[in-house]
Amino acid sequence: MSNKIRWGVLGGGGDSLIGVLHRVAASMFDAYQLTGAVFNPDFEANKAFANEIGIPTSRIYKDFDTMVAEELKLAKSERIQVFSVLTPNFLHFPMAKKLLENGFHVICEKPMTMTYAEALELEAIQKQNNNIFALTHTYTGYPMVRQMKKMIEEGVLGDIQKVDVQYYQGWINPIIHDKEKRNTTWRLDPSKSGISCCMGDIGVHAYQMLEFVTGMEVKTILADLNHLYDDNQMDIDGTVLVRLGKYTKGVIRASQIATAEENNFAVAVYGKKGALKWEQENPNYLYHLVDGEPIKTLKPGNVYNSKLSLDGTKLPPGHPEGIFDAMGNIYKGVAKAVRNQPYDKAEFPSMRDGVRGMNFIETSVASHKEGNVWKEL
Amino acid sequence: MSNKIRWGVLGGGGDSLIGVLHRVAASMFDAYQLTGAVFNPDFEANKAFANEIGIPTSRIYKDFDTMVAEELKLAKSERIQVFSVLTPNFLHFPMAKKLLENGFHVICEKPMTMTYAEALELEAIQKQNNNIFALTHTYTGYPMVRQMKKMIEEGVLGDIQKVDVQYYQGWINPIIHDKEKRNTTWRLDPSKSGISCCMGDIGVHAYQMLEFVTGMEVKTILADLNHLYDDNQMDIDGTVLVRLGKYTKGVIRASQIATAEENNFAVAVYGKKGALKWEQENPNYLYHLVDGEPIKTLKPGNVYNSKLSLDGTKLPPGHPEGIFDAMGNIYKGVAKAVRNQPYDKAEFPSMRDGVRGMNFIETSVASHKEGNVWKEL
Amino acid sequence: MSNKIRWGVLGGGGDSLIGVLHRVAASMFDAYQLTGAVFNPDFEANKAFANEIGIPTSRIYKDFDTMVAEELKLAKSERIQVFSVLTPNFLHFPMAKKLLENGFHVICEKPMTMTYAEALELEAIQKQNNNIFALTHTYTGYPMVRQMKKMIEEGVLGDIQKVDVQYYQGWINPIIHDKEKRNTTWRLDPSKSGISCCMGDIGVHAYQMLEFVTGMEVKTILADLNHLYDDNQMDIDGTVLVRLGKYTKGVIRASQIATAEENNFAVAVYGKKGALKWEQENPNYLYHLVDGEPIKTLKPGNVYNSKLSLDGTKLPPGHPEGIFDAMGNIYKGVAKAVRNQPYDKAEFPSMRDGVRGMNFIETSVASHKEGNVWKEL
Amino acid sequence: MSNKIRWGVLGGGGDSLIGVLHRVAASMFDAYQLTGAVFNPDFEANKAFANEIGIPTSRIYKDFDTMVAEELKLAKSERIQVFSVLTPNFLHFPMAKKLLENGFHVICEKPMTMTYAEALELEAIQKQNNNIFALTHTYTGYPMVRQMKKMIEEGVLGDIQKVDVQYYQGWINPIIHDKEKRNTTWRLDPSKSGISCCMGDIGVHAYQMLEFVTGMEVKTILADLNHLYDDNQMDIDGTVLVRLGKYTKGVIRASQIATAEENNFAVAVYGKKGALKWEQENPNYLYHLVDGEPIKTLKPGNVYNSKLSLDGTKLPPGHPEGIFDAMGNIYKGVAKAVRNQPYDKAEFPSMRDGVRGMNFIETSVASHKEGNVWKEL
Repeated sequence: MSNKIRWGVLGGGGDSLIGVLHRVAASMFDAYQLTGAVFNPDFEANKAFANEIGIPTSRIYKDFDTMVAEELKLAKSERIQVFSVLTPNFLHFPMAKKLLENGFHVICEKPMTMTYAEALELEAIQKQNNNIFALTHTYTGYPMVRQMKKMIEEGVLGDIQKVDVQYYQGWINPIIHDKEKRNTTWRLDPSKSGISCCMGDIGVHAYQMLEFVTGMEVKTILADLNHLYDDNQMDIDGTVLVRLGKYTKGVIRASQIATAEENNFAVAVYGKKGALKWEQENPNYLYHLVDGEPIKTLKPGNVYNSKLSLDGTKLPPGHPEGIFDAMGNIYKGVAKAVRNQPYDKAEFPSMRDGVRGMNFIETSVASHKEGNVWKEL
Repeated sequence: MSNKIRWGVLGGGGDSLIGVLHRVAASMFDAYQLTGAVFNPDFEANKAFANEIGIPTSRIYKDFDTMVAEELKLAKSERIQVFSVLTPNFLHFPMAKKLLENGFHVICEKPMTMTYAEALELEAIQKQNNNIFALTHTYTGYPMVRQMKKMIEEGVLGDIQKVDVQYYQGWINPIIHDKEKRNTTWRLDPSKSGISCCMGDIGVHAYQMLEFVTGMEVKTILADLNHLYDDNQMDIDGTVLVRLGKYTKGVIRASQIATAEENNFAVAVYGKKGALKWEQENPNYLYHLVDGEPIKTLKPGNVYNSKLSLDGTKLPPGHPEGIFDAMGNIYKGVAKAVRNQPYDKAEFPSMRDGVRGMNFIETSVASHKEGNVWKEL
Repeated sequence: MSNKIRWGVLGGGGDSLIGVLHRVAASMFDAYQLTGAVFNPDFEANKAFANEIGIPTSRIYKDFDTMVAEELKLAKSERIQVFSVLTPNFLHFPMAKKLLENGFHVICEKPMTMTYAEALELEAIQKQNNNIFALTHTYTGYPMVRQMKKMIEEGVLGDIQKVDVQYYQGWINPIIHDKEKRNTTWRLDPSKSGISCCMGDIGVHAYQMLEFVTGMEVKTILADLNHLYDDNQMDIDGTVLVRLGKYTKGVIRASQIATAEENNFAVAVYGKKGALKWEQENPNYLYHLVDGEPIKTLKPGNVYNSKLSLDGTKLPPGHPEGIFDAMGNIYKGVAKAVRNQPYDKAEFPSMRDGVRGMNFIETSVASHKEGNVWKEL
Repeated sequence: MSNKIRWGVLGGGGDSLIGVLHRVAASMFDAYQLTGAVFNPDFEANKAFANEIGIPTSRIYKDFDTMVAEELKLAKSERIQVFSVLTPNFLHFPMAKKLLENGFHVICEKPMTMTYAEALELEAIQKQNNNIFALTHTYTGYPMVRQMKKMIEEGVLGDIQKVDVQYYQGWINPIIHDKEKRNTTWRLDPSKSGISCCMGDIGVHAYQMLEFVTGMEVKTILADLNHLYDDNQMDIDGTVLVRLGKYTKGVIRASQIATAEENNFAVAVYGKKGALKWEQENPNYLYHLVDGEPIKTLKPGNVYNSKLSLDGTKLPPGHPEGIFDAMGNIYKGVAKAVRNQPYDKAEFPSMRDGVRGMNFIETSVASHKEGNVWKEL
């Protein structure tokens, strides 16, 4: 009898890239068994996809509600333990809510909810039910991001005095300059993607990363967002001034009209004793700067890395791992939690990241709309 | 009923890193079902490992011969279709041989055999049986290596006039200077690793890569190998002059005493019309140089890449993929072959690469021993 | 009889690094003859330094006023034509003023003046007298910065939609955390360095670069500056939101407590048709990004560069030039202007850059002090 | 009266780039006064050029022999002290010879002579006359090359076990494929450039660098050179196996048909205790690798650098210096020697480098012609 974790998937069927990402990640440490799913709202397509990827159709359900109802009829030892929610954004909240209420653990794609209010509600439910909840801010699964966090935690940088996070993409550029495209893309439609495009999609990654690696909280923000055409005023670019303490300031910069940038996400943290810098497109390098010393470049898998970082590297130094491996590390952490094994809180982002992230998104938009004023988070 | 390919694994149990690599790769495109295995020579450990990774023990066999015998008793529709051979080097040949003789397809770790003679024998067997055989020169699975191959094939570089391949590692440095270690490491023991250490392990990767990307054959070589202590004369470093045509010369450089290098494998090809350069530690960049033009840097997943390259990228541009993904691409290619789907020969290295590689290794050693003389391949 | 430009120097004696920089720059194209100087307020030291660097002492004067008076007595054909003002900051204005009033051309170190009011006064004087005035924002002399400017001018990027300039240094970090040092360093003393440290010293470089490369003007700014100890509230860090047009936004980021950064000055400009990026510490690379195309890396001296860029490269491609060469290019441009030869306005920063820069500095401080509010420039 | 060194120049007039390089270098530390010259074989052009660059024509001579004769008539305190020989290659030897015989110091462009025999003759003359002789292997003047040398000298790498030097250019590519061009370019004409093109021009730089940084001597070499058309068999590419000791091997790789490479000169040295790597096109970075430690990147001007390295940096860290600055450092060293001040032998390449270099060139060609055989140097 397999001792794998029984895993259910919502969404992610057909050509879904996110579906591939989660399936590969779940397979990476032999911990999960894909046991049931609603990949697709169309039942036939749903079953066909199950066949295509080679899993039994016995627990492929016609819809989410049926799935929950049927799984609850099964003995706990048979029942799916963890669900991954990969559906369109507006479904994240109702699905996660129902799953948590019914005792399932949840791995949820970002954004966690459509509003901050929903996020608070979800948090309350989780606290009551005490389930495991992981939000896939995938980049935190990279070994060198984990190493950065641990070094800061250990005081390698001393007091933090400056933070700077950039998340620049260019993919909206070819869309935004075409009137039809910009008014039909779901990302730019608030009813489908929430009140923010750029901050909601990537600014929030930058924000979460900042809090993740520093272990500090952003207290107040002042945002200046941008759009290029008045017929679509969703933010596609923005700069957010942030304060984490009386003397700890910084900036979050995000753009989807940074033409031809692919996924240029970079974080720099400067402390009294040194600095650490990391870039997502070259994720296997961590730069450590100290006054009057040569720059040190750390790489995954080496003995000088922390236990947390090393736990996220599968091969010897010099064999690059990427985004699938980062997501795999997050699944690995969730598996430990599900199995009641010891794990580090840093192994996967939590409900708290989701709640704070939704607050950040809404507060950014409010700060901008009110004339670029400081707002507390 | 799953339509996944029935997949068997030989070796790769316990803490084996190569085992993880192959399992993740096989899972990447939902094409393989791990159906049976001999992970370990110890039957109990073998079954325990199956439990640990959550697969049924019904087709976990006590040894290789039993496995083959038992599988052959099954109906073709139940029988394992492809075996991955991940055992110690000296077992690659006998296992692959028996598998091919009995009609199984084979994915074989490198080196294919211990000797060139064995390689020729294996080739003959495959030709007779017409099975699929893939040799895991994993690096050829990287999207930008594939792109390099296709661009050269399409004539982007014109006639090739210079090739330069480097494979520098430093991992033997801490071993070689310790008398006990250097005389107990299996890699430095010819009875376990064959007549060559450096050329056999990594020089051959460099050689295969050169022929893979250029589509040309190395005709003659002159090798100068090196060791550091006379009590262990296995090559741990070497430079090989190569000629691919009357006016096409180059060099293969490999070392395991390039202190502190991790896996610094790099290939440069210069033609009449331009150059292409790629580095394994930053695998998502391909540099295209043309006289009098800005340097062009190509990245995976972009529209300008070839079909073959794009087939090996799972996410949009800017999301780094790594060595697991490269191996996943090789498994993807083999799956197409097994399923009789159309595929590009470049999707996985073949028996021919193995035969030529073994020839390269033996000829390098001979060239060196005979006083650094030219030898035909 | 030499046809070199007669050149006078104020300041820059002894161990002055800026003195070396200007002398080398002036020598670079054989255009200037160091004819007279007041290197040092101490007359003996002044003459000794002249001896040390091997120039005649006949026109080494005891002080600035004497120098002007004596030079004015000489025939125009003998008189110094251009003065370089390398004295402490507070002397820039009175010296430049007197020089311009008396018909001399001026090359002035940055900051041009201590206040915006002085800058406006100086501008008025120059307009009246019609002299040549160059402000040494040296970085604009780099060939690839010039190339960036020309490409944007020619429309290669289309409409600009996003700008981001960073200037990060860490040199104040070891000073700021030491109470005695932070209260004795001239840079942190407003009476010696003006009302701003970080914005005045490097923020203004970032600002000038932004306007230089884009050819656009910053209309409004909102600044958030920072200090670390209340006993010294000079800004040592700051982020400035900028708007260059209704839909053209961006950010200037400057810090002197970005621990262990050396001189990490970088500029990125994103337009509808592409992006250009440049970094001062690797000045010989210019990155050109276009949606769906490989990244192009331009390097100095190549045929694809503009005339202006090529004019600033002395050797064939692949021979790195640096900051001395950038300053040399500025001197080359000034020489053309002095000799009434045709030149491009972009060959050296002008009075206008100085006036706008002083405005930027004072407005940044005001924006910050008034609670991070938008201010017009 | 100026205490500058009286400096004479042979060649380097008109559009000569090498002339600019030497004049700027000589001016860099205020040590040299350009006192006399024969810039050009045409006396009128010669004087016109002197006027153009603003030096008196009183000591511009009609030819080299006149110059030597006239200068010898002057009192020692007036006479030119150091000559820079920038004439076409075939003139280096006769000019340097006569200068040394007559008591002048010499800075000589590379190649020192046309043949090894001439080099030996020149060495004998210098020994007799005891003059200062510097050969402008300019790259050794870079601060990080000097740092590399000093670190190896101090034992930071331990015993050297592997060396690898690359010098790849592509500039001959557009020439070599054009029959007329390849048979009219002086570089490819043995009567003008000596018996070797690639080895003589750049291979020798790589060789000298290897011996410079390691402080070791290459004992034996085996060369494989290349040409692309039989109607011009000058080497334009080549790989040279080198041995510096029983267990110290390596390779020198040089090419002028590495299409579109600019000046890709790189040196890597691997020792028992670590490795150092440097690249000419990014000269301000030195990489120090040690087993199990983060990679260290050293940059110029920092306190951790050696005295010799720091002596070659004029500005604070983060202000890139380039090839002109490297040549300036060589002139600075020569100035110290001329003035009998203490200096480090590593401040400028010497006669010995020239002699060994000519031997390397001739021996490479011989090794190749005799069938790629080992030859002693």
